[in-house]
Amino acid sequence: MSNLLEKYAELAVKIGANVQKDQIVFINSTVDCAELTRLIVKKAYNAGAKSVIVNWADDAVTKMGYQYRSLETLSEVPDFLVERVKYITEVDSCVISIVSGSPDLLKDIDPMKLQKANQAMSAKVDFYRTFMMKNSAQWTIVAYPSKEWANKVFPNDKKSEEKLLKAILDGSRVKETNDPIKAWKEHIAALAKNNKTLNDYNFRKLNFKNSLGTELEVGLVEGHIWAGGGEKSIKGHDFAPNIPTEEAFTMPSKFMTQGKVVSTKPLSYNGNLIVDFFLEFKDGKVVNFGAKEGLETLKNLLEFDEGAKYIGEVALISHNSPISQSNVLFYNTLFDENASCHLALGAAYPMNIKNGTMMSQDELIKKGYNASKTHVDFMFGSACMEIMGTTSDGEKVQIFKNGNFIL
Amino acid sequence: MSNLLEKYAELAVKIGANVQKDQIVFINSTVDCAELTRLIVKKAYNAGAKSVIVNWADDAVTKMGYQYRSLETLSEVPDFLVERVKYITEVDSCVISIVSGSPDLLKDIDPMKLQKANQAMSAKVDFYRTFMMKNSAQWTIVAYPSKEWANKVFPNDKKSEEKLLKAILDGSRVKETNDPIKAWKEHIAALAKNNKTLNDYNFRKLNFKNSLGTELEVGLVEGHIWAGGGEKSIKGHDFAPNIPTEEAFTMPSKFMTQGKVVSTKPLSYNGNLIVDFFLEFKDGKVVNFGAKEGLETLKNLLEFDEGAKYIGEVALISHNSPISQSNVLFYNTLFDENASCHLALGAAYPMNIKNGTMMSQDELIKKGYNASKTHVDFMFGSACMEIMGTTSDGEKVQIFKNGNFIL
Repeated sequence: MSNLLEKYAELAVKIGANVQKDQIVFINSTVDCAELTRLIVKKAYNAGAKSVIVNWADDAVTKMGYQYRSLETLSEVPDFLVERVKYITEVDSCVISIVSGSPDLLKDIDPMKLQKANQAMSAKVDFYRTFMMKNSAQWTIVAYPSKEWANKVFPNDKKSEEKLLKAILDGSRVKETNDPIKAWKEHIAALAKNNKTLNDYNFRKLNFKNSLGTELEVGLVEGHIWAGGGEKSIKGHDFAPNIPTEEAFTMPSKFMTQGKVVSTKPLSYNGNLIVDFFLEFKDGKVVNFGAKEGLETLKNLLEFDEGAKYIGEVALISHNSPISQSNVLFYNTLFDENASCHLALGAAYPMNIKNGTMMSQDELIKKGYNASKTHVDFMFGSACMEIMGTTSDGEKVQIFKNGNFIL
Repeated sequence: MSNLLEKYAELAVKIGANVQKDQIVFINSTVDCAELTRLIVKKAYNAGAKSVIVNWADDAVTKMGYQYRSLETLSEVPDFLVERVKYITEVDSCVISIVSGSPDLLKDIDPMKLQKANQAMSAKVDFYRTFMMKNSAQWTIVAYPSKEWANKVFPNDKKSEEKLLKAILDGSRVKETNDPIKAWKEHIAALAKNNKTLNDYNFRKLNFKNSLGTELEVGLVEGHIWAGGGEKSIKGHDFAPNIPTEEAFTMPSKFMTQGKVVSTKPLSYNGNLIVDFFLEFKDGKVVNFGAKEGLETLKNLLEFDEGAKYIGEVALISHNSPISQSNVLFYNTLFDENASCHLALGAAYPMNIKNGTMMSQDELIKKGYNASKTHVDFMFGSACMEIMGTTSDGEKVQIFKNGNFIL
């Protein structure tokens, strides 16, 4: 397994963040992921990093913070935390995040505490979220199984950690028999071809329908761009923000979503699971919603700020994607979003519109951009999903049939 | 063992840092010490901490930093690191450090890199060292075995980690059969009585002699205070800076040390071991030195700054102290210094002179205070140590006989 883990670390550094000589590499990790973190640090130095700075956290300590701290102190964000993030935006940096956490780590915590703490942090470091969503630096997200996460995915299984690691590596195209770097270059080229097809159609709107209750129309902004797989930073470096990635995604027009969407996978938000939920939209805004589990968490998500009630991303993934075919429910958006069509509540990516990364926020907003301070993906794809596109001259084109891309 | 570890965590919080309601607790730890760290976090919240902030590091990542980074980049200290330390000095804080590192972690690293990096960091955060040495906040150091450290102490022993943990707990008076909090209160009272005896004699100088080559005279500053065990922060909170602690220590007069001292235990400095070394002093300054191992490291220590060639602390520990009697060589100063008389090269503690914590640095220096930016203890006690004190009216009093306190 350690040979595979080394390949995975190499993939994170070479394809994910695409670390350049003399860049400063920031790694967000938890103490549970020390083994993978150390491998990534080594590969980053081998790639010529000037320095590698690991920002460690620990889920148990994080949870105790929410348990024992008051609402008031959770809303205080020390300046040094802001300074650390500011430093990332000031130097020639790239950022590698390793996710590992339990999907429902914070289920016993007062949701109001989570909301207030998140809002306080967001108010202080929103400049960083904007910086990253504009691809000002290369960034990537990879994963490693914590014991808690593994037990959620493979309950009552003594080999749960081993199994989850295998599923992570498989989904990331890291195998004994292949060169993952080469496999990823080919995969990114295939996704780019897909994006080109969608861009050439220049759809005005998309209509989603399946037998699970979803009947949704999503208007797209004028000049929208389909992206996914590989991206380019403002400085011109290629990178792959998510490992794995299977999606083609673009920018919906903020006020042009209508109808109902029904989730098909649980969503882990703020360390809580939202299960079997639906949203109803009118002129872009969520006007009704429900959930079998985690209703309070869903409510907090929608009330995070004004833009959280609107979508900012629509993404198409075939139901026969490798991650979907693995039949593993990861309870983690990095994986589950690549097994299923999804939407994001909250902010849009400026790069999903022509010249977007060069536009001011006001210019973007005029185009239909969602300027929320949050961005949360949720999954609604299924084997029975049908998607129709409507072009600017009114032509209707079937994009998905029986859950799969057919263009 | 987990019950003992919980007692140890409680000791660190209640006696070590003596965490007060609404204080912010800072913990310096490494990923190897997650288990103890989590227990300390919990106990700190139980004691009423407003928040607990863990500053995690990892020895392997630290070592790679020294291996791969250039001398130049190692000398750059990002502002956010300084801001973090500044924050500690600005709020009502206390600091708990957990040591666990391999005593010779950095033995393959270019000593010049270690020296430059240390000097750069010291220049930026010297305000923090001064803050702590003045007891402006409560602080304490405890320990936990990393695999590497355990293998150094108990080589070729499959149970090395377990054995080292047991030695740490034994040395810290944490046992199945006792209440460590109560044991420590008694122990601190006994050390205070010892300090009072030494203070009442008000020695002008101490003469050390043993059959291993040590023949040293150490002049003490006028108005010196013997301390050790429990201390009081500027804000008036009792605390115990070291767990374990067995020492009585005071302030030597910077230019009044003469003769030769021969080490009796290895010293781990900058992740390197210095073994079987000696120092010769003239008018306080080291004028000659040698070492069987680690001569370059010793040289760097002495050249850290002007004050590093002078001592700043002299400490008396009976050879029959429990840690000494355990016959475990810890290769770690927190333990080894409590098994043996020791000196520190570098800065003195302002509290070791009457009203010292209220004096300016210039006032302190006039009294014979060493204002170095480093402070490194080394051990020279032995079973054959004899110590004579000379009072201000010339009376000679034997303080140690055959390695033990006899006053």
